[in-house]
Amino acid sequence: VLDFTVENLTAEEVARLRAIYEPLTHSVRDLVDATIRTEVGAEEVAEAKAAIDAATARLRTKQVDGAFGIRFSSDGDQMPWGNAVTGMRNPTAPPLVVEHESDGGVFADFHLGAAYEGPPGHVHGGVAALILDHILGEAASSPDSPRLTGTITVRYLRTTPLGPLHVEARIDRTEGVKTFAVGHISDDQGVTVRAEGVFIQPRWTRD
Amino acid sequence: VLDFTVENLTAEEVARLRAIYEPLTHSVRDLVDATIRTEVGAEEVAEAKAAIDAATARLRTKQVDGAFGIRFSSDGDQMPWGNAVTGMRNPTAPPLVVEHESDGGVFADFHLGAAYEGPPGHVHGGVAALILDHILGEAASSPDSPRLTGTITVRYLRTTPLGPLHVEARIDRTEGVKTFAVGHISDDQGVTVRAEGVFIQPRWTRD
Repeated sequence: VLDFTVENLTAEEVARLRAIYEPLTHSVRDLVDATIRTEVGAEEVAEAKAAIDAATARLRTKQVDGAFGIRFSSDGDQMPWGNAVTGMRNPTAPPLVVEHESDGGVFADFHLGAAYEGPPGHVHGGVAALILDHILGEAASSPDSPRLTGTITVRYLRTTPLGPLHVEARIDRTEGVKTFAVGHISDDQGVTVRAEGVFIQPRWTRD
Repeated sequence: VLDFTVENLTAEEVARLRAIYEPLTHSVRDLVDATIRTEVGAEEVAEAKAAIDAATARLRTKQVDGAFGIRFSSDGDQMPWGNAVTGMRNPTAPPLVVEHESDGGVFADFHLGAAYEGPPGHVHGGVAALILDHILGEAASSPDSPRLTGTITVRYLRTTPLGPLHVEARIDRTEGVKTFAVGHISDDQGVTVRAEGVFIQPRWTRD
């Protein structure tokens, strides 16, 4: 059984925490990109490293044990702020901001830069799988009924360029505890990667 | 056609560049973890952010255009230092250090922390797919014959805990330009995720 921490934070408290930590995450995301691309020399790198280590030590003076987890606000909203794909507090997340459509479909418009590279100038195939796994899972889940990936198949039509991208997914059908979802990533020339997956309602959420 | 930049760096120059940039990447990876987990207050966060922004600006005074790409040393070794899974210069990469066995199999022992979370305390299912896509691709490829993912199927046996993990892959069979590879991720209790994939020799590398 997974540990979903209930914090019962008010909407005001959630907004206050977001205002503190979201700008920090943006800055670290920018630093990640600069770290990959920089060509400055040894001395400047050493000085930047020392400043970064000092900032890290300061941030670690008070921190949660282990990973961030998922917390809930008092109105039941999930706060998956550490999530590897959508986490507002996770600098390795693009992050995806997932939009829900009235017909149950979900989509996100996002941008992938240097941190997501596989083939030169292109998205790592595994990063495409990461994003599709997440978005199909969001399409298959509802707030009161999370679903975890059972099996996912990802088909690569062509390499996906780094830059502005779109991803979308929807439920194809549901059979008992299994929900079948489909989706794809596209650039401005069309679809680059397709996925289909089976998502399972965890035993501990079944009645 | 992908742009593989040839730099013809000597082994000494490669070692010199690694000595400059690898410690910086380690530090930024540590900062990413601290950014997700910190609970310090608004003032300390703002001060850390200012120091980070200054370091980023300094690193950006000289940088490559776009993503890092793949460069080659003079002895033909690839330097995929920006790679999202293995990149020595990519703070979002765990990074995986892939070992090659004499029978053609590949494996890596690695550690996933807070940055890779999906379900509370557990690896994001998509991160497992990311890592399996990479390692199956490495098993299917050889230095003179890279192969890109055609299709990959990932099966989740149970949720994978954050912490020390193992991944391995091998070629199942090759049929013309298609190589079929299989692999899995395991923790100390056994296999958590299995994958099988078809990897294609790109048209531009065929004779």
